[in-house]
Amino acid sequence: MTARDGIAPPCAVLGSHVLADLAGIDAALLRDAARLESILTDAAQRAGARVIGAHFHHFGGEHGVTGVVLLAESHITIHTWPEHRFAAVDAFMCGAARAADAVDAIATALGAQAQVRQQVARGGAPVSAAALRPRPSA
Amino acid sequence: MTARDGIAPPCAVLGSHVLADLAGIDAALLRDAARLESILTDAAQRAGARVIGAHFHHFGGEHGVTGVVLLAESHITIHTWPEHRFAAVDAFMCGAARAADAVDAIATALGAQAQVRQQVARGGAPVSAAALRPRPSA
Repeated sequence: MTARDGIAPPCAVLGSHVLADLAGIDAALLRDAARLESILTDAAQRAGARVIGAHFHHFGGEHGVTGVVLLAESHITIHTWPEHRFAAVDAFMCGAARAADAVDAIATALGAQAQVRQQVARGGAPVSAAALRPRPSA
Repeated sequence: MTARDGIAPPCAVLGSHVLADLAGIDAALLRDAARLESILTDAAQRAGARVIGAHFHHFGGEHGVTGVVLLAESHITIHTWPEHRFAAVDAFMCGAARAADAVDAIATALGAQAQVRQQVARGGAPVSAAALRPRPSA
């Protein structure tokens, strides 16, 4: 975080953002918006996060799904390409919620045969305990 | 992307995912869900992306906002901490849409005085022109 007068960056690591490219997944599962919503919602709960909304969209026919689970601790998204048996997932969580656990649960539930995962610390600079608190769930 | 039998990773770079930590923003703006929705939706259009849905949630009182714009090309999210004048933004776009342009537009509209930005290629391995196509918008 660039230091400037009057700017107080929230914390050393405000949250953890995990990006996962998941491959080798059953194509039919990657078209099933209801099943994907269930998988991501379950993953949020396993990560210790609180769900405030879920929005999933199937692009129709043989196309994939785009979906998001909004959390008190931030979000999980998924975008699927059934024709490539591929899904792009990201989980961003602040506070005590465990983004990597959510991605583990999703990769397992999808039966992904290969993955590339990157973890990025979000928030920069000096630690503030207050900034590490998730927001109220409503 | 780990190579395995029977798995065809979609493309060299399926999409671009830009993560931006934005600081020094007016706190009142970071509590205004309607204004943030307008800023993100406008940014999506400036990036050449097509909006399929927008979902924004204010946590109430002095708390911040969590929001997502779902796109035919993937998503833009924002999570705000007004007490730290801070917002965490990410934009993931496949195809010809320009994720970095969306983040530029958001940082400008928010009047961010400092930022840290990371850009991550999503999708791994061999190029497939088909995988670079965004999905239909409905």
